Formats: sequence, C-alpha cells, structure tokens
Amino acid sequence: MALLERAQALQAQGRDILHLEVGEPDFPCPAPIMAAAGAALERGDTRYTPAAGLPALREAIALDYRRRLGAPVTAEQVVVTPGASGALQLVMAALLNPGDEALLCDPGYPCNRQFVTLAGGVPRPLTLDPAEQFRLSGERLAAQWGERTRLAMVASPDNPTGNRLDGAELAEMARWCAGRRGTLVVDEIYQGLCYDAPADTVLRHGDEAVVINSFSKYFGMTGWRLGWLVAPRALVPAIERLAQNWFLAPATVAQHAALAAFDEETLLIAEQRRQMLERRRTLLTESLPALGLPVVGGAEGAFYLYLDVSAHTDDSFAFCQDLLEKAGVALTPGLDFGASHQPERYLRLAYTCDEARLREALRRIADYLERP
Amino acid sequence: MALLERAQALQAQGRDILHLEVGEPDFPCPAPIMAAAGAALERGDTRYTPAAGLPALREAIALDYRRRLGAPVTAEQVVVTPGASGALQLVMAALLNPGDEALLCDPGYPCNRQFVTLAGGVPRPLTLDPAEQFRLSGERLAAQWGERTRLAMVASPDNPTGNRLDGAELAEMARWCAGRRGTLVVDEIYQGLCYDAPADTVLRHGDEAVVINSFSKYFGMTGWRLGWLVAPRALVPAIERLAQNWFLAPATVAQHAALAAFDEETLLIAEQRRQMLERRRTLLTESLPALGLPVVGGAEGAFYLYLDVSAHTDDSFAFCQDLLEKAGVALTPGLDFGASHQPERYLRLAYTCDEARLREALRRIADYLERP
Repeated sequence: MALLERAQALQAQGRDILHLEVGEPDFPCPAPIMAAAGAALERGDTRYTPAAGLPALREAIALDYRRRLGAPVTAEQVVVTPGASGALQLVMAALLNPGDEALLCDPGYPCNRQFVTLAGGVPRPLTLDPAEQFRLSGERLAAQWGERTRLAMVASPDNPTGNRLDGAELAEMARWCAGRRGTLVVDEIYQGLCYDAPADTVLRHGDEAVVINSFSKYFGMTGWRLGWLVAPRALVPAIERLAQNWFLAPATVAQHAALAAFDEETLLIAEQRRQMLERRRTLLTESLPALGLPVVGGAEGAFYLYLDVSAHTDDSFAFCQDLLEKAGVALTPGLDFGASHQPERYLRLAYTCDEARLREALRRIADYLERP
Repeated sequence: MALLERAQALQAQGRDILHLEVGEPDFPCPAPIMAAAGAALERGDTRYTPAAGLPALREAIALDYRRRLGAPVTAEQVVVTPGASGALQLVMAALLNPGDEALLCDPGYPCNRQFVTLAGGVPRPLTLDPAEQFRLSGERLAAQWGERTRLAMVASPDNPTGNRLDGAELAEMARWCAGRRGTLVVDEIYQGLCYDAPADTVLRHGDEAVVINSFSKYFGMTGWRLGWLVAPRALVPAIERLAQNWFLAPATVAQHAALAAFDEETLLIAEQRRQMLERRRTLLTESLPALGLPVVGGAEGAFYLYLDVSAHTDDSFAFCQDLLEKAGVALTPGLDFGASHQPERYLRLAYTCDEARLREALRRIADYLERP
C-alpha cells in the first residue's frame, strides 16, 4: 500500500512509472458486455434482483460450466455476489463457526485472512515450499491440517505464483477435507487465464469443493464488482439468507451486462486477451532469469510472476522501494502475500501492461541491477 | 419472507396481488442519473476506483451536506460503499470489539442485527414504547444503555414507523454516547423523504454521530447498490482499510451515475416524488383509522405506516397470511421488525404503489374486515 501510494505520488510529479504492481489488466471491458449494460439502461432495468442474482444469470453460469468446462453444475448451486469479495464473505461465514481454523496458502491472496476473521474464524498459514514451486499438494495439506481446522483455501491459477493445480488432484483434496468434516474452498477467479493447458475446474472432478469465481479477470469486468460462488446444494439456502441480509442483492445493471459474458463474441475477445497475456509471460520468463531473477511459481496462469530476488537483496521490500525510486518500476514485495514463506526473498510482477512497456521495464531493471 | 414468496406464488397463478410489503418505491431511476451512467459506459469508465470511492463523488456528497443541509461535512469524512449494507458492515466492524453490545431500536430494520453479529458484537433490543409512538428519547436510551454497550443505532426517518427525530436531540444523544466511550449510529437512508418538516441531518447539530446513507431511496437508485457513510475523521483510515480488504471498491458505473444525483434536475425529480409519496401518505392516514387500523408511528417520513391491528387479531402474522389469501393484499407482519415490542399487535404498510392501487387496497381491506 505504501509503495502504491509512493508510485502514484511519483507519477503525479511527472515521473514515468511502469506499473507492474497492479492486479487489474490493461484491457477495456469487452464491447458485448458494455452493449448489454447499455441495453439494460435503455430498458430502465435498475431495480433490485433476487438476493442470489437474476435467475437467467445463475442459469447462464451453470450452463457455461456444463458446456464449456464439462462440469455438472446446476443453477441452484450458483449464487451471484458483489464481486468475489462478496462470495468469500458468504462462504467463510457459512463454513466457519467462531474459533474454527482456516488454512490459507502462504504465499497467497492477502485479503482472505480478513474474510476468515470477519466470520469469527482463525486464519492459519498453509505454508508452501519454494522447492515445490510453492505448489499445494495433498500431503502438505494433510500435514498442516489440525484438530480445529474446518477449511482450507487454495487458488488455481494462483496469485502470486501463477500455479495451476490439477483439477483431479484438487477434487481429491476436497474429498479428503470432507472426510474430516471440513471443506476445500477453491478460488478460480483466474480460471480462464491458463497458458499450458485448457481451463479446468475442480467441479468437473467432484462435487465436494466450494468454488469462488468472478467476472473481473477473465471477462474484464473489474469495476462492475460481480462474482459468484458454486456450492453443494445443501449449503445454498443458508448462503442465500446471508446474502439477503448483508447485500440485499448484487448490482442489477452489472448482472444484465454479465449475461453477455458467455456470448461467442465475448469468449473470442477473452481468448485473444489470454493469448496476449501468454506472449507477455513468454517474453518475461525468457528474460528475467538472465537478470538473476528466477521465477519461482509455476507461472501457468493468471498474470503474475513470483520472482526470487535473493541474489540481489535480503529485503525484497527495500528492493522494491529502491527500484521504484531509482528506476521508476513498481513491483509488489513478497510480504503482501504472507509472512511464513520467507517473503523477504520474493516479489511479484504483474504483467498487466503491454509488451513495449514490459520491454522498457526489463531494460530499466537490468540497468538498475548493473549499477555499482 | 414466507409471505413474500407466497405473494409471488399467488401472483404467478394469475391473482392480482397488491404489493404493500415492498420496500422499494415504484419510481424508475431518475433520467439524469441514467444519462450519467450511459455517459460512463460511452467513456468506458468501468475500472476499479479507490476503495473509499471516486474523489469527485466524495466531494459531491460533502458539498451537498454543506449546501443543501447546512452541515459542515468534508470529503475526507465520506466513504462511498456498496449500498448502505456495505456502510453498516464497515461501521459495525470499526466500532465494535468482540463481545461489545449494540442497542438496536425495536421495532427497527431487521438486518441491523446481522451486521452487529458479523462484527462479533452482541445485538440488544432498544425496546421502544407504543405510548411514545415508538419514538426514541434520550431518557430511553440512557435507561437501556448497559456496562458493555458501545453503540446504539437509530433511523430517522425510521423503518417501519416513519418516525423522524429532531436533529438537535439526536446530536445530544450522540454526545451522551460519546461521553460513555460509545457511538450513536444514525441511519439517514430515508433522509430526503420527510413530510412535515424539511430534511435534516444530525451532522448539522454536532460531529459525534456516525451517519449511514444511501442513493437507493431518495435518489431512486435501488438496484445500483450504492451508499455512503460519514464518520469523524479519526475513524476514516480504519474504515478505508476494511473497505479495501472487503469490497476493493464500490461499483464504478454506479458511482459515475450517482454524480448526477445532486444535479438540480435530479433534485427536482426527487422533490416531485416526495410530494407524490406525501399525497399517498395523506390518503392512507385519513382512511386507515376508520377501518380500526390506527397508525402508531409518527409517519413523518420514509414510505411506511406502522399499524396497530390489535382490534382485529392477536396475531398479526396470521392476519397478514389470511389477508393475502382472501383479499390479495400483501403487508409485512410486525415480527419482521423485532421481537420485543409486542410485534403480534402490528403490521407495516409500504406505500410504494400508486394512489389508484392504494385505494383498491383500502377497499379490499375494508371488505375483508367486514366479513362475518
């Protein structure tokens, strides 16, 4: 946060800052989605919807799981939410009782801790090993699962490592958790953004996991704040009641806009963007190791690279500060992704700007590292 | 809820149901707001905003307090939120520690309990007296304030009674709470909808209260899910951090749309609607007592009447069920607004449909009550 503010302040002073710290792609919201939003405005469709979302949107999401991903999801399992954030809040509250422990991958998305705490739960780091590319395995999950653990959460593809876990393996872990009166929550908000294998979902391989997703990343709908969750049917009534009490309903125009997300034209745009991101990834993964910045995570998805900076510093936060001041390149220090995985060795690069800017960033980083 | 579902089921069967249970006015979103939303779409303005909202919107809200309501509010005190629901969540979390007690007016808006519980607090009813028209007073507040109480919440105008409290009196109560290491939270989401006196805010009379507000009711932006809070400046950084973690940001297009809420043209539309609601209120308050349905609350604001139905039944829930089945009129039983104020004596009527429909409702209720 302090770095983000500093980056903005430098930019306001006229410095050219390369923003490789931002978790929001540089693509505009796809035209068919914008057109659907415009049509909803034309119709004056701005009143409250049901708490779990427009029935047509729940059905469209379920249909997309069945048709595009081959997972047997029904509309009754889908709850549309105010962003993935809203989904996380509902899921944590539905699954945790006060004092229950939740294992959160470390490194991992930092806000998840807040949702556990909000539900009265106790967040515990599920510490991952750089020797395993920070990849979660069933063994590691079992080893860290405790007597009071009721939930474990993992993202695939993951922020900050880009790791993509095998769907069948995830379903196996979900089954294992269910056998211990617990639940595996899988964050699939980067689902469509996979580079070495087609998109997959844990729901194609089993029905025990609870899944979080969002229109923000793959469908480019960041500022609309619209997400969803998929849960076993028995859990949905409780989740719907919470949604009714906490949110009343997700935003109406955003829901009508999202109905266009699964159109052929939108999916084509999303695929073109995925290919653009893949080219950016290739450019970076081919160049960074030569600068003494090896990529530690799998980098198979999302738009992040997690880099080992220990050849240059033993304090990645100070390194980020100095790089920003001297080279005008903004990155995110490992500390933002957890405290238990030796974060001072790592930093995250988000490839959310175009190739020309990324090349410029590589130049500046190389110059910076060559200084005496 | 059960009644709402039954009303919808009957309507789906082709019955003509008069919906006097709905807390959403029948007016469309004002044209200038829709136009501003359309312009934001044209510009492609759909990316994330800062967590506390667009600076221009925070400034516009503060300016409206200063110019239209005469309250010295600055932009730094304003946090834009995903609906008043988001504001409630932030405020409760910022003000309550686990185990702290919060007094909630009974009768009052039922979801407030959920936000207290979510923050780890313990909701306690602040039981109001029908002999005082269910109106909160400083004496009543002091009498029910306990050792562990850290917060009291009141709405003005209020749902379900329509009570409007004097701003100076509210500020006095806020000062009293502050003197006891506590806070008065004032829900002003029906602020503009006052019928016997101009709109007011507690913030014109003091700076100790925390205020919740929304674009939903007065500005007719229900489905957009946009609200705000005003807090003492010292509280705002903590609230902003929570907002960043929980919501990332309020919806972007909704915020651009809301910038048009304070336009002269929009305020004129809002005023016309207020006058329409006032005519509906007059029609009802002149007719209902003659049916043996006296109005208990002050009915000075919002769009609700709280009615004493004890001349006809000792179970207002059963009465509502029967009236729906036999007369096709949907009302809300008192139980939805708290358990401690003898809710079985009361029901709420929302005048959210036009005068012709209200006259029809009066006819049907009269017929129903005259049956042997």
